[in-house]
Amino acid sequence: MEDDTQHPEMRIEEEMERVVDQTKELQEAARSLISKSSREEKDLQQRARSLYTSMDELRSSIISLTLDDHMDHRLAEKLEAELNRAKCILVDGDASYFLVGKVESWFLKRFLGPINVRAIRKDVQLKVKEEYNSYKDRTTWLFLLFPSILLFLRSWMWDGCMPAFPVQLYQAWLLFLYAGLALRENILRVNGSDIRPWWIYHHYCAMVMALVSLTWEIKGQPDCAQKQRGVELFLQWAMMQGVAMLLQNRYQRQRLYTRIALGKAKRMDVVWGETAGERGQLWLLCPMLFVLQGFEAYVGLLLLQTTVVGVVSEWQVVFCGILLVLMALGNFVNTVQTLLVKSRFKAKMKRTKSKQQLD
Amino acid sequence: MEDDTQHPEMRIEEEMERVVDQTKELQEAARSLISKSSREEKDLQQRARSLYTSMDELRSSIISLTLDDHMDHRLAEKLEAELNRAKCILVDGDASYFLVGKVESWFLKRFLGPINVRAIRKDVQLKVKEEYNSYKDRTTWLFLLFPSILLFLRSWMWDGCMPAFPVQLYQAWLLFLYAGLALRENILRVNGSDIRPWWIYHHYCAMVMALVSLTWEIKGQPDCAQKQRGVELFLQWAMMQGVAMLLQNRYQRQRLYTRIALGKAKRMDVVWGETAGERGQLWLLCPMLFVLQGFEAYVGLLLLQTTVVGVVSEWQVVFCGILLVLMALGNFVNTVQTLLVKSRFKAKMKRTKSKQQLD
Repeated sequence: MEDDTQHPEMRIEEEMERVVDQTKELQEAARSLISKSSREEKDLQQRARSLYTSMDELRSSIISLTLDDHMDHRLAEKLEAELNRAKCILVDGDASYFLVGKVESWFLKRFLGPINVRAIRKDVQLKVKEEYNSYKDRTTWLFLLFPSILLFLRSWMWDGCMPAFPVQLYQAWLLFLYAGLALRENILRVNGSDIRPWWIYHHYCAMVMALVSLTWEIKGQPDCAQKQRGVELFLQWAMMQGVAMLLQNRYQRQRLYTRIALGKAKRMDVVWGETAGERGQLWLLCPMLFVLQGFEAYVGLLLLQTTVVGVVSEWQVVFCGILLVLMALGNFVNTVQTLLVKSRFKAKMKRTKSKQQLD
Repeated sequence: MEDDTQHPEMRIEEEMERVVDQTKELQEAARSLISKSSREEKDLQQRARSLYTSMDELRSSIISLTLDDHMDHRLAEKLEAELNRAKCILVDGDASYFLVGKVESWFLKRFLGPINVRAIRKDVQLKVKEEYNSYKDRTTWLFLLFPSILLFLRSWMWDGCMPAFPVQLYQAWLLFLYAGLALRENILRVNGSDIRPWWIYHHYCAMVMALVSLTWEIKGQPDCAQKQRGVELFLQWAMMQGVAMLLQNRYQRQRLYTRIALGKAKRMDVVWGETAGERGQLWLLCPMLFVLQGFEAYVGLLLLQTTVVGVVSEWQVVFCGILLVLMALGNFVNTVQTLLVKSRFKAKMKRTKSKQQLD
């Protein structure tokens, strides 16, 4: 203590030396940690990819041997099941980060620049997916609420003629909603999610439509009801879509929860359970989706009709009409494709099971 | 070979065993790499933070000792310079990632969800900043070009009355431009950039204004010139801003290049060079910025005036007018603050230098 007050300069200089040394050490430690991790990551990447190739080769060997009758069918099935289990661990486990190459996303590059949005940890990836689902849940209620309120006020307060401002507010909200969804879905895809590209394109289209509808002048009296027929149809369709989205979200959420709850060891089983378990919901969801897509195309055609009849002649109406028809077609094709994949998978499972019972 | 064809089943089973083992090993290696890195990161975080605290304590010790005349002034300055150098390495070097706590950004959370956009490697961070600057460069040309073309066509082809579509296209482009800038700037801030919050708020305001202007009906004949006066002023202001942005980008780019070229050891020196070196450009830039801010406020007031006079009475006009005035005020205050910080820093440097010469 005495020494300190007598030689404060020396004490400070010593302390300074310590700080400078520590800074250099820390800098060195940080640099070595970063370079070491990136080296080890590259090593794991190579291992994961070569393992993936081995699995593919093994599968084709099994198939060709079975076809040439050089292998017992029962053994082949056992081996294939084992292979599937291993592949599932590789593709869906902690190592999956190292397997997936860099997924390019022009949308993210355009808006975010060259930043990396991939999470290395599986739990973070699952958290991102979970948050995406809860975001959809939250916004779906608004998606249902906004057009309902607008349509309700239209007949209750506004005498069939909506003022421009609330409709435009709703359209601006739609634009931000779809932008958020498109960004999140691109991030999910970069993180290894198998989301169908069409659903992302669909949200790009929806963004463009929201933008175009903002420039679309909401006309008032006279003949308000006739002029606003397009807006009215659009709002009705949005309400229906809100209900379908609520149903869809529940269906998709249950899938995710089941996967997490069953844990890694049972991940392969989960894929079976997914298609089998919620059959009841799927039967409710599918007709609903098809009706919705039909209505979407119908609204599009009605919009096109208004320009032919000559009530409204703005380019926005034609544009939105064509876009709605295209979106309906794309939705239809993609829903059918998803169902086909699911039913093919189910048929295969049934075949395997009945064979096992026969054996 | 003979063995292979005679016992293909055995070969396959062996191969399967190898693949399964390798999968388990890889899974284990991935898990351990991830957990080890996150442990080491936490350790470095603690070290970086405690070191930062030590530096602060050391600085206050030096100051108090100097004030009490327990320390030679020349030594104090030498120590302080040394401390600054060490701090610069800590704050701007490879260890900086571990120093900065998680920066929250509601804007990113709102649009991207809970994904991490921080780059651990300094070179990636610099690349992000570099790309942000080149993005600004690229868009600034368009920012200058679009309104120029619109104004040119207006007097050359359109007889003083702009059609709605090209103007709305420009407004939509503005919206996407500002959204991209706001997202990138938030990402830069999360990565430790010292960008002033106001410039990000400014881009939020610009986004809102672009959105509102999209709903703003571009009226045609009769009295087109009078009705479109607001749009005309806005385009003129945008042209001027384009020129100012070009200048600003060049100034900011040179700073970054100098920093990278001089390397880490000289980073501290760079901060001096930054303010001293481009004095000529700063003298050109500052009056330009002030004129621009004045014009921005003037356009805002003119918009407000049109509603008072009663030519146009849409809420969008009032809203955009108020927003422009507020943005001009904010820009002015923040430019002055930046200049004050710079000049204070310069004065301090001068004092230090003249003292060194005296000594």
